Amino acid sequence: VARACKDYGVRVQKSVFECQVGQADWARLRDRLLSEYKSDEDSLRFYFLDEAAAERTEHYGVAKPVNLTEPLIL
Amino acid sequence: VARACKDYGVRVQKSVFECQVGQADWARLRDRLLSEYKSDEDSLRFYFLDEAAAERTEHYGVAKPVNLTEPLIL
Repeated sequence: VARACKDYGVRVQKSVFECQVGQADWARLRDRLLSEYKSDEDSLRFYFLDEAAAERTEHYGVAKPVNLTEPLIL
Repeated sequence: VARACKDYGVRVQKSVFECQVGQADWARLRDRLLSEYKSDEDSLRFYFLDEAAAERTEHYGVAKPVNLTEPLIL
């Protein structure tokens, strides 16, 4: 699950990923997650943020881990 | 941090809480979190979901833990 999310976005907390994807990529990512996650162990929760909501996002404390070897998607 | 969030909302994953709050409660919750969290250890990330975004939220897998002894806020 983490691998799939990281292929499409940025890990901002241990279990939180942010992905900026178009409809086609979102369908691909969603399919991949639903086929790979363990429904009796894992919990997947998808939130849809529009641009205004994304801009309102606030962050405090330990810096979000950004992998600078990959393209930064915000 | 978890205690503060649970006072205002529902724990939907280990480190994810959803709170439906008005402006005054949001200010109170935010102040409390910022005064209680450890800025060198914890990471706080606030997302603002409007009603449409909240309705689009999707959940799969292990049921979100809902504490039925407290009022349910969705």
